[in-house]
Parts: sequence; C-alpha cells; structure tokens
Amino acid sequence: MYYVRHINNRQNIGFSKLCRKKRKDMKFSNLYRDTLLNDIIPFWEQFSLDKDNGGYFTCLDKKGNIYDTDKFLWLQGRQAWTFSMLYNKVEKKQKWLKIAKHGIDFIKDHGMNADGNFYFSTTKTGDPLIQPYNIFSDCFAAMAFSQYAIASGNEEIKQLAVQTYFNILKKQDNPKGNYEKSTGVRPLKSFALPMILSNLVLELEDVLDKDEVEKTIDVSIHEIMEVFLDKESGLIYEFVKPDGSLEDSFNGRLLNPGHGIEAMWFMIDIGVRRNDKALINKATDTIIRILEYSWDDKYDGILYFMDANGKPPQQLEWDQKLWWVHLEALVALSKAYKYTKRKDVWEWYEKVHAYSWKHFSDPENGEWFGYLNRQGEVLLDLKGGKWKGCFHVPRAMYQCWKSFEDS
Amino acid sequence: MYYVRHINNRQNIGFSKLCRKKRKDMKFSNLYRDTLLNDIIPFWEQFSLDKDNGGYFTCLDKKGNIYDTDKFLWLQGRQAWTFSMLYNKVEKKQKWLKIAKHGIDFIKDHGMNADGNFYFSTTKTGDPLIQPYNIFSDCFAAMAFSQYAIASGNEEIKQLAVQTYFNILKKQDNPKGNYEKSTGVRPLKSFALPMILSNLVLELEDVLDKDEVEKTIDVSIHEIMEVFLDKESGLIYEFVKPDGSLEDSFNGRLLNPGHGIEAMWFMIDIGVRRNDKALINKATDTIIRILEYSWDDKYDGILYFMDANGKPPQQLEWDQKLWWVHLEALVALSKAYKYTKRKDVWEWYEKVHAYSWKHFSDPENGEWFGYLNRQGEVLLDLKGGKWKGCFHVPRAMYQCWKSFEDS
Repeated sequence: MYYVRHINNRQNIGFSKLCRKKRKDMKFSNLYRDTLLNDIIPFWEQFSLDKDNGGYFTCLDKKGNIYDTDKFLWLQGRQAWTFSMLYNKVEKKQKWLKIAKHGIDFIKDHGMNADGNFYFSTTKTGDPLIQPYNIFSDCFAAMAFSQYAIASGNEEIKQLAVQTYFNILKKQDNPKGNYEKSTGVRPLKSFALPMILSNLVLELEDVLDKDEVEKTIDVSIHEIMEVFLDKESGLIYEFVKPDGSLEDSFNGRLLNPGHGIEAMWFMIDIGVRRNDKALINKATDTIIRILEYSWDDKYDGILYFMDANGKPPQQLEWDQKLWWVHLEALVALSKAYKYTKRKDVWEWYEKVHAYSWKHFSDPENGEWFGYLNRQGEVLLDLKGGKWKGCFHVPRAMYQCWKSFEDS
Repeated sequence: MYYVRHINNRQNIGFSKLCRKKRKDMKFSNLYRDTLLNDIIPFWEQFSLDKDNGGYFTCLDKKGNIYDTDKFLWLQGRQAWTFSMLYNKVEKKQKWLKIAKHGIDFIKDHGMNADGNFYFSTTKTGDPLIQPYNIFSDCFAAMAFSQYAIASGNEEIKQLAVQTYFNILKKQDNPKGNYEKSTGVRPLKSFALPMILSNLVLELEDVLDKDEVEKTIDVSIHEIMEVFLDKESGLIYEFVKPDGSLEDSFNGRLLNPGHGIEAMWFMIDIGVRRNDKALINKATDTIIRILEYSWDDKYDGILYFMDANGKPPQQLEWDQKLWWVHLEALVALSKAYKYTKRKDVWEWYEKVHAYSWKHFSDPENGEWFGYLNRQGEVLLDLKGGKWKGCFHVPRAMYQCWKSFEDS
C-alpha cells in the first residue's frame, strides 16, 4: 500500500508541465528527489531483501517478483553502497542502515575467498558459484564497505574497505589473474580501471591516507584525460596500447559511450574538489562530443557500443539503449550544466531527459526498465537481473536531485 | 568480373518462380547448388585468402573488403574443412585443394600450442593472441585435418586429426581447463559437447577405428535424445545437471533453438546411416517442436535464445535473427522432409525458406548477411567476422542441394 501510494504521488508531479516551466532547476530537483524516495527506493525495500539468507535478490521482474535467486557480488556491493549512501547523505533512517547491513553481512560472510578476492556470484545461501575472475566485484565491495563504515562506525568493516582497496591496487596490472585469456602478444590497457579508481578513491576518502587519495586522483586524471581521451577525435577509447597509442583491432576500435560519459562526471567531481575549471570544461566538452558521436539520429537515444572507425562492432547488442548509459548522461549533463551554465549542455540535457523519462521510466510498476531495443521498445522487461540492481537508477536520481538543488 | 557474372547468373534463376512450381525438389536442388558454386564459394575464393601470411581473412564487410586481420581458429578450421569437403564431395578442383592447404598449413604452423591445444585467435602473421580456453577450436581443427587428409592423402595431417580428436576426448570433462570460472558447487553439463562429438566422429570416420566411431555415436545419441531432449516439453536444453535433471537457473533455463535444430540433422544423418527410422522420426518431431516454440510470431524468423520458463534471458541478443540458425533449420527440414515426406515438415520448410532467402541473402554483393534485428533488418552488414566465416552458408547450401537432389 505504502508503495502504491507513493507511485501515485509521483505521477501527480505532472512531469510534462515541469518541462515547460522556466524555473526548471527546482522542479527537476523535486522530480529526482521524489522519484528516488517514493518510487525507486521503496521498490528495492519491498522486493529485494532475502530475509531468510541475507543479501539481496536482484533478479526482479517488472512488478518486482523474484525470477532467479542467484546473488551477483557486483550487485550485492552496489545495493549495500546505495543504502549506506542514503543513510549518510539523505537521512539517518535506521531502516536504510539495516538494509545496508543486510548486504554487508552477506558480502563479508559469503562474498570473499581465502585470499580476499570477491566471487562473481553465489547461490542464494552464499555458496560460491563463479570464481573471482576480475576485480570489479572487489571494487563494489570496497565502495560498500567504506560507505557502510561511515554509516555504522564499524571498525572491522572500515579495515575490510582498506584491505580490499589495496588488494585491488595489487591486482591492477593483472586484474583477471589466472583467468586472463590474452597471451600478452598484443597487450592493451583497459579504460575501466582508471575510471573506476577515480571514483573508488573518492568513495574511500574517509578510510585512506590523504596522500594516497591525491596520488590516485592524479594518476586517474592523467590516464583518463590524456591517455584514453583521444586528442584527435575527442572520444574516449575503451582500450589503448600500453604506450597510449591506438590499435586497429576489435578491442582497440571499441567505444563505450556510457563509460566515457560516466567517467566525465567523475572528472567534474574531481574538478570541483580541486577547483580546477579547466578540468570541468574539458570534461564538459568531452560529454558533448561523445553525445554528438553516439546519439542515434534514426531512433534517438545513445547507442551502447560503437566502432571508432565505423567498422562492424563485435557486440551484437551495439544498437540497444541501456538504462545506465542514459542515467549517467543525465548525471553528467546536470553537473556540467551546474558548473558551466552552457546553453548547448542544457539543450543536450533536455534531449536526453525527454528520451530517458519517456522510455525507461515505468510509472505503472515502479523503477526503470533496463534494456530497450534500438527503436526504444522494451527488450527485457526486468527491473533487475545479473547486471542491473539497486545502483545506477538511485545514484543518478540522487546526483541529479543534488545538481539541480544547488544550481 | 568472374565473380559479378556469377552473381547475375544466380539472379537469373528466377527464384520467386521456383517457389510456385510443383516439381520443387529439383528446382530447390539447383538453387542451392548454383548459389553454392556461383555465389558463396567465389566470394570466399576472391576475398578471404591471406596470400602474404597464409590462412584466411574472415572479417569481410558486405562487399568483401577486409575490415580486420585477426585470425580466429574456429573459422580457420571451418574454412579449411569447407574447401576440403568441396574437393572430396563436389569436384576434384586443384584450386579448392590449394585453398584448403592454405588454411591447414596456417593452423598446423600457428594454431597449436606445445600441448596440442588450439588457440582461439592469432594475429594475421600467426602470433597467438587468445589462449586455448575451450575445445571448440580443437574440434574445428580436427574436422579440417580429417577432411584434408582424405583430400590430400597426407599422412601427417591424418595423424594430427587423430591426435586432436583424442586430445578433445581427454579434455571433455573439463573443456575450459584452467579458464573454467565455475566453482563446481552447482555443476552443469553442456549440450554443445555431445552435439559436436556426434558430428565430429562422423567427420573423422575415415581416420578412426570403427569401434571408436560406433561407441561415440551411441553415447551421443543417448545424451542428445534422452538426456538433453526434455521428455515433457519436447525441447532441447543447453545445460542440464550431471544426473540429467533440469535446473532453475539462467543457464539451466537456457534454450538455443539453432543448436537444437542443428543437432537434429546430425541425428537424422546417424539415423540414415543405421537405418534407424525411429531416430529419424523422433528427430523430425523435435525439429518441428523447437520451431513451433521459437518462431517469432510477431516478426517471423527463429529467435536466437529463449528462457524455457519464459523468464528474461541474460543474452541481450536473444531476439535477433542469426544466419546459422536459419540455415541449420533449412538443412534439418530438407533432410526431415526427404526421409519422412511429412506435410507439416514441408510447410515449415517453405516458411523458413521464404524468410531466410528474403532477409539473409544478398544478391547484390554476394554471400549472406549474418545478423538481423528482431524486425528482420540487417543489424551488422558484415559477411564475415569473429564468428561468421566460410562454413554455415556453404555447408547448408551443399546439404540442401543434396537433400533435394536425392528426394
């Protein structure tokens, strides 16, 4: 009942009217806040808790029914982070702290192997299913531990955050360990690593040395803005050679517009922190450049993958429209607009906003759809799965709420 | 010039007229033969040979231009097999034997590691890029070696075929070796293995013991028709538990209609070989059942992946229409019709034929497109890539030619 009532509240906001108003900032701020608090979070509160085994169910259909019970560590960490973050930044609700602990305990008790590496997935009761084959489970666990340590003051969890962070750094040159299939004949470095580190180190700021934080930020800015951001095209590549040059191969030509845009709002956050206007401006230019390149002129929306040389990408899902790509673009544009007030940024914001709220939002059942086909129709009507959980939607709602509130 | 002329010849066959004729068998036989010999094979002869380094380029755009030069061992083996098979079964053309040798030499010199396992990919010059992380490269290498040994009488290659076959059997209980990410907590066995073995053993018949062949056929029939073919639904599952029961998990619910249909024509071939009419009938029933289940009533065509319980599949490409799925269906239906003359089989043949020739065939540039979106529009306009090479199209053309010729 509680849940249904709030969904109705949200519909009453009168979204289409909002867009026509001149004093848009406060209205957008309210839209994002209300959607976060009255739609998105109640959805996960109501449907995702595994009260028998701890942790969260993330495979939820469009109405919130559980359709699979496996637990994916990325998503366990991300949801524990989300509820800890809400407790730390929005309101000291005991309910949120309890839900965060629900995930933290599961991750701590079942997510880690003897070497401190995090599994990719477990059964609902916590038996490991898929081995730790890269470091992203570890990254989201570290983020969750750190936010929860702040929320709870729990010293053990704080130490786990620090330990996990340094374990990630130790593994960063060979993140897949024994599961790495490349021979090393043609090495490439991946954008995902500096990108996630630039965010992770800020998340862990309260539990790390100041020097460690600043050093990692310096390295991340350099890698992202000087190495992976290609000067000639203005685009961010997913993989480059160790010397930073481009490679003409499937991976070497790969563009992941959502990744590039997401990293740019991490850069804006760092620019604000350091009062570095040049960094904010360069990140803003890059957001616009990526959007211009990857916007689908035929059906609207941002394409999922592209080949930088216009060759056929190997990803069959290249033309799909994904929720997280569009939400990261909304966050990036709302921040870029807040700090630059550029007209072109605002125009892009409105374009992405109109597409995203129309196609992904599901006022009837709550939360957002994750996967649309190129035409903008729902491709998979899940609200959560193996890769979509309680993370991108609430984080973006929170970030956009705050960007517009402060504008 | 040669190539273009033959494309025109093909258009002159007057395909739409053919379909209206009552005496369809011979006409279809001619269509498949002419398309194989005057369109498909000339395309690969003209565009795929790497004359500098040996082996084949498979990343060819819609006109045959090379857009990437990496070499994928699956596709090297498959193309060497195709040209050896043509030499053995269609005509003793020295050109075909030479093209086959072109690939065989590359695979032999660059495809294998010190333990006799086959890489997934190499650079154009043959430096290994991706380690042997499953046994499918080995399977296609063994098929190629065996056909080429028959074609050439080369004893060394024959021994390599035998050696590779037994290495595959040795690895079959742990086909991914150290690259296996599953913990073993919830083991599943994969349909791909008995399926490929049922075909491989017939391919290697000339180089293996009779007992070995019959034993492997027995095991394959049992696994495919009794274990992976679910009695209740009549569908073939991609993964089952070691005891043969079904599992309610993403992999456990997965259906791959193209795989199931392809395996059924392997079963019909075995049924013919053993004069086992019950096997032919059961395979035919299964083809029809899979088609009924996986045909897209909205846009036509066969869906790529499905969840047996109607839950959201994890494969984002689930709704796409793939060339090989449809070609395998044409082969399966043409064989099923040849041996049963069932009216329902013929109706399905006509339906799949109409869809496939209309959407995948590219009379303008030659060869077939590989990847369509759900609506039947070209999603990637490549003629070859990382997974599509000179294999499914020519093999299906040959098989359908022969099915209709003998009908």
